[in-house]
Formats: sequence, C-alpha cells, structure tokens
Amino acid sequence: MNKLLTFSYVGGDTRQLYTAAMTAADGFRVRAFGFGCASEELSLHVSEAKSISDCVSGAEVIVLPIPYSTDGMTVNSPLSAVKIPLDDIISTADTGSIILGGRLDDAFIEACKRRGARVFDYFIRPELEIMNAIPTAEGAIELAMANTPHTIHQSRCLVVGYGRIGKLLSEDLRALGADVTATARKHSDLAWIGARGFKSCRTERIADIAGGFDIIFNTVPHPVLNFKVLSATRPDVLIIDLASKPGGVDFDTAKELGRRVIWALSLPGKAAPLTAGRIIKNTLMNILEELGV
Amino acid sequence: MNKLLTFSYVGGDTRQLYTAAMTAADGFRVRAFGFGCASEELSLHVSEAKSISDCVSGAEVIVLPIPYSTDGMTVNSPLSAVKIPLDDIISTADTGSIILGGRLDDAFIEACKRRGARVFDYFIRPELEIMNAIPTAEGAIELAMANTPHTIHQSRCLVVGYGRIGKLLSEDLRALGADVTATARKHSDLAWIGARGFKSCRTERIADIAGGFDIIFNTVPHPVLNFKVLSATRPDVLIIDLASKPGGVDFDTAKELGRRVIWALSLPGKAAPLTAGRIIKNTLMNILEELGV
Amino acid sequence: MNKLLTFSYVGGDTRQLYTAAMTAADGFRVRAFGFGCASEELSLHVSEAKSISDCVSGAEVIVLPIPYSTDGMTVNSPLSAVKIPLDDIISTADTGSIILGGRLDDAFIEACKRRGARVFDYFIRPELEIMNAIPTAEGAIELAMANTPHTIHQSRCLVVGYGRIGKLLSEDLRALGADVTATARKHSDLAWIGARGFKSCRTERIADIAGGFDIIFNTVPHPVLNFKVLSATRPDVLIIDLASKPGGVDFDTAKELGRRVIWALSLPGKAAPLTAGRIIKNTLMNILEELGV
Amino acid sequence: MNKLLTFSYVGGDTRQLYTAAMTAADGFRVRAFGFGCASEELSLHVSEAKSISDCVSGAEVIVLPIPYSTDGMTVNSPLSAVKIPLDDIISTADTGSIILGGRLDDAFIEACKRRGARVFDYFIRPELEIMNAIPTAEGAIELAMANTPHTIHQSRCLVVGYGRIGKLLSEDLRALGADVTATARKHSDLAWIGARGFKSCRTERIADIAGGFDIIFNTVPHPVLNFKVLSATRPDVLIIDLASKPGGVDFDTAKELGRRVIWALSLPGKAAPLTAGRIIKNTLMNILEELGV
Repeated sequence: MNKLLTFSYVGGDTRQLYTAAMTAADGFRVRAFGFGCASEELSLHVSEAKSISDCVSGAEVIVLPIPYSTDGMTVNSPLSAVKIPLDDIISTADTGSIILGGRLDDAFIEACKRRGARVFDYFIRPELEIMNAIPTAEGAIELAMANTPHTIHQSRCLVVGYGRIGKLLSEDLRALGADVTATARKHSDLAWIGARGFKSCRTERIADIAGGFDIIFNTVPHPVLNFKVLSATRPDVLIIDLASKPGGVDFDTAKELGRRVIWALSLPGKAAPLTAGRIIKNTLMNILEELGV
Repeated sequence: MNKLLTFSYVGGDTRQLYTAAMTAADGFRVRAFGFGCASEELSLHVSEAKSISDCVSGAEVIVLPIPYSTDGMTVNSPLSAVKIPLDDIISTADTGSIILGGRLDDAFIEACKRRGARVFDYFIRPELEIMNAIPTAEGAIELAMANTPHTIHQSRCLVVGYGRIGKLLSEDLRALGADVTATARKHSDLAWIGARGFKSCRTERIADIAGGFDIIFNTVPHPVLNFKVLSATRPDVLIIDLASKPGGVDFDTAKELGRRVIWALSLPGKAAPLTAGRIIKNTLMNILEELGV
Repeated sequence: MNKLLTFSYVGGDTRQLYTAAMTAADGFRVRAFGFGCASEELSLHVSEAKSISDCVSGAEVIVLPIPYSTDGMTVNSPLSAVKIPLDDIISTADTGSIILGGRLDDAFIEACKRRGARVFDYFIRPELEIMNAIPTAEGAIELAMANTPHTIHQSRCLVVGYGRIGKLLSEDLRALGADVTATARKHSDLAWIGARGFKSCRTERIADIAGGFDIIFNTVPHPVLNFKVLSATRPDVLIIDLASKPGGVDFDTAKELGRRVIWALSLPGKAAPLTAGRIIKNTLMNILEELGV
Repeated sequence: MNKLLTFSYVGGDTRQLYTAAMTAADGFRVRAFGFGCASEELSLHVSEAKSISDCVSGAEVIVLPIPYSTDGMTVNSPLSAVKIPLDDIISTADTGSIILGGRLDDAFIEACKRRGARVFDYFIRPELEIMNAIPTAEGAIELAMANTPHTIHQSRCLVVGYGRIGKLLSEDLRALGADVTATARKHSDLAWIGARGFKSCRTERIADIAGGFDIIFNTVPHPVLNFKVLSATRPDVLIIDLASKPGGVDFDTAKELGRRVIWALSLPGKAAPLTAGRIIKNTLMNILEELGV
C-alpha cells in the first residue's frame, strides 16, 4: 500500500488510540484528534492535532470509531474534553477522501457522499467480527477465572450457541482442561461440535442438562436462559452472558432464583484494547487494499 | 423414533454393511440384499434376504448407497455377485415407504414418487459432509505418515483451502506437532485461520511460499497447484490431493517435475468404513427424525 | 476407606474449609475449629466445634493447614479470632490418632510421636505439588490477562524453567494461542520442550532472547532474571514471578529499569481455593489409603 | 563447534545414512563406510569410502550405529555387502579420536580405551530416549489407523504406562479426538495424568476397565496384559504393544482368545528414519558440545 497516505483518527477510546499508533508504526503518516484525556503513556506515539480541521483536512483516510456516534450529532469521543461535531468533519474532509467508521447510519453516509468522499462501515466486515471473537473469548475466561473459586481445569462448562464466539470459546475452555458441552440448533452446527470433539446438545433442550454445569456461557442474543433453564441450574453456577442486547438471560428471574449472572458486553475493548486496536487496523488495511489505494 | 420400523439396506460397500449393522444394534429391524460377497465376519449381524422383493417389500425405510447407482440402471453393489435392477426396488417398494440414497438423479426421484414413495438424497445433508471430513483428515494423515521418512511432528505442512476438510486437517496436523500454514481466498476465512492460530496465506499467492513445505495437502477442486506452484516446491515434497474430480493438481506437470502426488479420493470408506457407516446412520436418523417417523 | 472415620480440621484459610466440606461430602464425619470468621456461605457445611478439645478428642484423623504454624507455638489459623496453641492439640489428640499437616518441623513431629500419634507432612507429597501446578498456572494466566492490554492469543511468552509449573503453564499458554518459548538447563528437559512442540532455549542464555517477549513467567527460585536479562527485555514487558522465596527476579533492578513485575505467591489458595481444597483432600485420602485406614 | 571436524560413519541402516547426510549438511566433513547397498537416492549426499581405514583413519569422530554390533565381532551394517570387523575400526582409529556408538559393551569400551580413543554410548542419553518417543508415538498411531475400521477420533483408547512414550502418545491420541485413559502405578504419575486432563486408572486395576476400549497401547515391559486383562477386553479390540522385549502382552493367551496384537518394535527407524536420524545427530552434537570439541 502507498506509505505516503495520511490517516486522520478522530474520536474513540483506548482501542482507537492503539489503532492509530499501530498505523503510525506501519510507516503511515498519522494525525489524531479527540484523545486529549488519554494517559500520557498511551498518547506517546500519536500527537493530538490543534483542531479538527488540522486533523482532517488533507488526509486521504479519515477514521471514526465504533460506533462512530452515539447521538447522530457528534463523534463518539470519550477521551475528548470537547464535543466534536460530525459536520466539522464532513465540511473539512477532502473531496475524494475515504471515511471509515463503525455502525454508520444512512444520514451520515449520505452526507459523506455529498461531500464527494467515499465512505465505508468497517464494523460489518466479517473478519472484524471473527477476530473480535478472540478477545471476547479470552475476556470471558478471565471473568470466569476471577469469579469462581475453582479452576477452569476440570470444570464443567456449557457454551450456548456455536457461532464465532461459541466456537473459539469452546476451544479455549477445552484447551485449559474444562469438560465442554456446546449447543446449537442446526444439525450442521451440531455436527461441527461433534467433529471438534465437544459434547453437543440442542439449544432447545438445555433445560434437560443445565444442572450439570459449573459455568454457563451464553452467546445467543435471544432469551434462551429462561425460567425453565435457570431453575434447572445449580445454585452455585456462574452464568456469563456474552450476547449483545437484549442478552440471552432472563435477568430478573435469575436474580429471584439467586443465580449469579455477569452480562459482559464489549469485552474486546475492555479486556484487550491493544488487540482490539490491531484488529481494527488490520480490517482498515484490508478495506484500503481492496480499494486499491 | 419408532423402534418397530423396518429398514431395507440394498447395495453398497463395507460402509453400508456397517450402517446396517449399527441400525440393527440400535434396535430396529434390518434386512439386507446385495452383500453376498462380504466377509463372514462383517456380515455376521446382518443376514442377506433371499430376494430383492423379500428385502424391500414391507420395509418402511429403504436405503441405497452413495452413489445409489453408477449406470442409472442397477444399484451400485460392489459386494453383490448379481446385478440388482433399480426397477426391481421401485416396483416392490411399499406405497408410503421412504427411500434414501446418495447422489440421486431426477429420473430416479421421479420414479420413486410415481410409486408413491418419499425419496431423499442423504449425500447432500451438511452434517454428512462435515462428519465425513473427520475420516478424510485422518486418512490424509495416515497417508502422509506412510509416505514420508519423517514424522508429522516438526514437519512443515501447507493446507490449501479452509473448508470442512481444511479446517479439521489443519487442527489435526498442528495437534501432532506440525508447523501448519493454511490458505484461503476470503478475508473472513483468513481471519478464521489466524484466529485458530495457524499461519495464513492467500490461495492466490501459494507460489511465493510453496518452497517451504515438506507436505502439501490440497482440498480445493480447482487447478491451484499449477506449473508455477509445483515448480516452486521442494523436490522431496509430498503432495496429497484430497479434492474430488478434477482435483487441484496439474498431475502431468507434477510428473514431469518429478514431484510425488497422491490423489486420495473417497478416504472415509477406505480408511475408516466403520466410522463412515456410523456417519451415514446418524444422518439417516436425522432425516427420519425430521420427518417425524 | 472406612466411612466411620472422624476428621478434625483445625486452622487454615478458605482452602481448608473447602477441604473439610468435601471430606464431609464424601460421607465422613467432620469437625472443625478455627474458622469462626469465615463467611456464612462457606461455613455452611462444616460447623465449628465449641472448643479445641471437642474438635480433636476422639477424632481418628486431625488435619492442620499448610503451613501448620507460622510461629511454632500456635496453629496457622487466619480465620480464627483466637489463637490455638499447638500444645492444646497434642494434649487432646487420641493416642493412635493420625495427625496430618503441612511443612511440619522436627519439634512438632517429635511431640506428636511422644503423644502416641502418627504424624505425616502432606505438603511433601509429589501428587500435591503436581496438582497444585494446575491452579498456579491458571492463576498466572489470569494475572497476565488482567495486566496486559493484549490477548494471550498471539502474545509471545517466555516460560523460564520446565518443572511442574513450567510444563503446565506452557501447555495452557499455547492452548490459548500464544507463541511459547520454554527454558531449561538439562538436555533431557530441553528435549521434552521440543517434544511437546515448544521453542526451547537454555536458561543460561535467556539474555540473548529476552527482548522478544511480551510476557515472561519465571518458575525458577534462583536469581535468573538478573540485570543482564532484565535490561534486554522490552520496556512494556510484563514479568510474572511464580517462584517461591527468594523468587527469581532481581526486583530492585527491575524497578530501576521500570519493568513491571508481579510476584505471585500461593496462587492456588488465592485464585482457586475450592480446587486447592480438593487437591488437599485427594492427597489426604491417598495417605490414609496407603496407611490402610 | 569446530566445523573442521571429520566424522566417520561406519555401519547402520537408513537412519544412520540420514544422520551422516545431516551432519554433512551442517558443514562438517563426513566419510562413510558400510552403506554400499543403500538406494542411490539416499546415498547421494554421503559417498562411500574405499576401505574401512580410508574412512576411519584421520577422523576426529567415529560413529557406529544402534546397536553397534549384534555379534560382538563385526559392526551392525545391514546395508553393507561385506562384514566389517570391529578390530579393523579400533586398529585404524586415531589416538585421541572420539568413538560414539549405541549399546556398547564393556569389551568394546575397553578395546577403544586401550587404543587411546574416548568412547561414549549415545543410546543411554536421556534426550535420545525422549525424542525417540515422538516417532514411536506417531508410528503407533499410524499402525492403529491402518489396522482399525474406525477413526482415532471418538475411539476409546487405553495407554498402559505413563513414561516417555505413554505421555506423548496420550497427548497425540487426545489431540486427534480420542477418549484417552492412561494408567500408572505411582500417585505422582496418576496426578500428572489428571493434570493433563486424561482419565486415569491404576495399572494394577486395568482388568476392571479393559472392556471399555477399542484400542489398547502398552508401553510397560512387564506382563501387564495377562489372562485376566485380556479376557476382559472386547473381542474386536486392537492391542499395540510398544514395549521392548519381553513385551507386556501374554501373546499366547491373546492368540487363544482371538485378540489381535501387534508387537511394534523399533518404530522410529521403521516409521520415520529421517526423523530418527535427526535425533541421533542432535544427540551426537550434544555429546560433542559437552566434550568441548
């Protein structure tokens, strides 16, 4: 790729700062704005621009965080003391620049296009989702280690759902010596579970086996851990819900039954921001490579 | 499932005999025809019917092998001394019976339906393909062990293609201590390769790295191992092609260059007929369960 | 084993309470003393005796913690509000009882024998040391996860020493996707490291490679991570020292160089007290079985 | 090490030829004698000396095979058309040369010393035994794959003995998806078996569980698979005995009971001569390095 490209990183949390730093380490020119409150240590390799226009104007690639905005008006910039209006970015972006952000909505996409910029949502790239499953699985294991008086080794673990996270989490747990059962609904997924040597169970039948586990990890964003399932679990079970909203656990019922539930959202950024940043950077580079930049 | 069901197994090789025996072991009534030449040991648990009509008539489930026929006229029955016409099966099958076979064509499907039978091709079931990847991967490893003077441990292995077989084979090879590189074309598959800890390479760029491997396993049914790739390999490389016809190796060029190539087709039935039979039986039971029989 | 045996548990931390509870769950009679300050939840299954003599007198097996005492005068009983003199145990123990404790000294052993009791140190049992390496390795991984901004996956880890902990830790790290190098001094251990597929390095030569690691785990209780090694490490390295006193890191030098070091002692009891308790219980049962009790 | 050293390889099978070739590839001068019948392909890199004295005289290091002799009179040289008297080697070896061989006896050692040579048995080096367990385990798996109609995946395997071979074989089998039980006699070995996540059983109690396995691997050179154990096994079990003479299986009883037994000796040289040669070479280099040559 053309090493003379200039990247403009605007907004985001620690992950984004790591992304910017690694982009610079790859030899690109990098500007940043909206990270004024980051710790000195982290911001070492990326210096803050004086203004949003200093950061954005003249940059070939402008990178916004995931999600790019939480209010539709300003950039999502938790490390910035000041608000950064989206309009300021659009109005100072060069015609022909490439704007990359996460969870973009139609209004923003349209605004970028009107400016003459090319715009892409990198959060929907499959490689980002797959790679993010790694820090998610590790973060889940860290939570399990920190919240049980026993080891993962020899513990009986149930992984509900065999998608990206379910697959990697099952492998990691088994690798640490756990006795792993994974669930799925489709025959093909159940075949994969068996092929990788895990015990399998249909997701519909979790209640039949729920009493046999020390730790239950849910990855399905539907209410699979309902009253029937929860009341079948051991009183000392630990339930870790990794599903995005609305989650997969009936939290009220769990509370009534006295079951411990940890709803762990956004683990990559929390448990391993550097890794999360590397994943974002790799995804950005894939997009730019495909664009032939 | 209803244990009073009668299964009629007609034709096929050792795998099919194992399938029949395991169906009987599950408590179903089983009849068989077309296995007269099987070894005494294998045919112990399944007795040969006197005629095709004795076998088929009155059976709720009729099972043909994979492929069900090689000539469109008779059942594929390598263990039978006599030819078994497809017409004899159709004409003696009960109305309402279920006919299960592999690689069925439209003509046969139509004929079954005209008879009033329900007919399904079990070879296209995804769980069969996934589970068959296990004996295929093991068979490939057995071939590699038998045809190299070194161990899999510490050998440098390239797995071309990261589909069902590529995934399981990569895991098995690494588990035995090999240094594994896997290739794929899509960013998402490349992300999976990295997520599982393998080295990755784009399939298009194999030629760049082909010289670094002791064993190359191909799983892609396209000519990926062409002159450019083959001439980059080590003279003592072993190439095992697991792809179905037309295979993925330019066999003529490989011969000219003096590269050893083993084209290993139908490994499940050859390397592990009992396992292959169990996989078929499980797939048949899934189909019948879905039919609510 | 004779299920009519009565066990008397005196002193120790949460681990010992789990040990007592699991002994009771196995069907033995269990008395306890010195756990008055434990949480209600934990002490559910083991009720506190009224006095040390009520606990000890008449019990066939008396179990003290690891270490049995920190002052040579009283039992090591961090969960007790009152001091428990060793003399009170010895003077009320039945003649012919079996006294089991950890890190016993000669004076105590002699005193027990004079009383007519049989006395054994279970801390020196090899199976206890081996099994304790499991929660130690997991505890080390939990620390590494909690104290780095990256995943274990794809991190470069050095494990110094290939004894019990080094072996299991190397396996666990690799299983999570780390790139693991292990060190040893003997050719035979280096051969094991290679046989299990890890990269190897002589412990004497760590300084040559120390710059290539994100995390360094030390298991050797000698000053192997000295100035030469420490100054070769990356500034952002995390060093986790698992070696018992005096440890294997020159802590002062590490501080001067700005290297982060965590000296993690007694991980089994801290990270996984239930598992640590199960390990103690299994070891006690092995001893009693060998005694033919 | 001093690259000007000259190695003289006398006798041995294919392994030794690979050892010689890899020594040459490392940059040392290599002479060979006693490989006249080797295939052209193999002998490419090592040319045969004209006479034993041409080979031995002036060489700093003289390497004999494992075992160095089968009759105490001549070198063990299956690839030689002529006998090579041991006396010819000793009488032409330089004073001060180093003679390395396997399974040396006192008479030969004395004769070498009288000549003024230094002599070492490399077969007793622990790293050779450990590293040889790798090709032994793989060879055993290849045998199991070739001699069962099922896959290693999902097969129930018993590994009798948890020494070098038992450890690596258990890991390999599990890695391929087998359900592995390992046996040992000592509590410490049983603890290791559990720590690595295998099911464990005392070797003394194999008869109690022998009926539950598809494949039994023995590594113990004592009669552990006796009548009691053998009669408890399944009729279709495959027994692979990896123990050196006298083996661990009562072969006569096994025959009477109709159990299939494969006594697999010297697997490294048979299954993976190149790897076996590399292991020998590495061991020789360790010895020379320790000698400070």
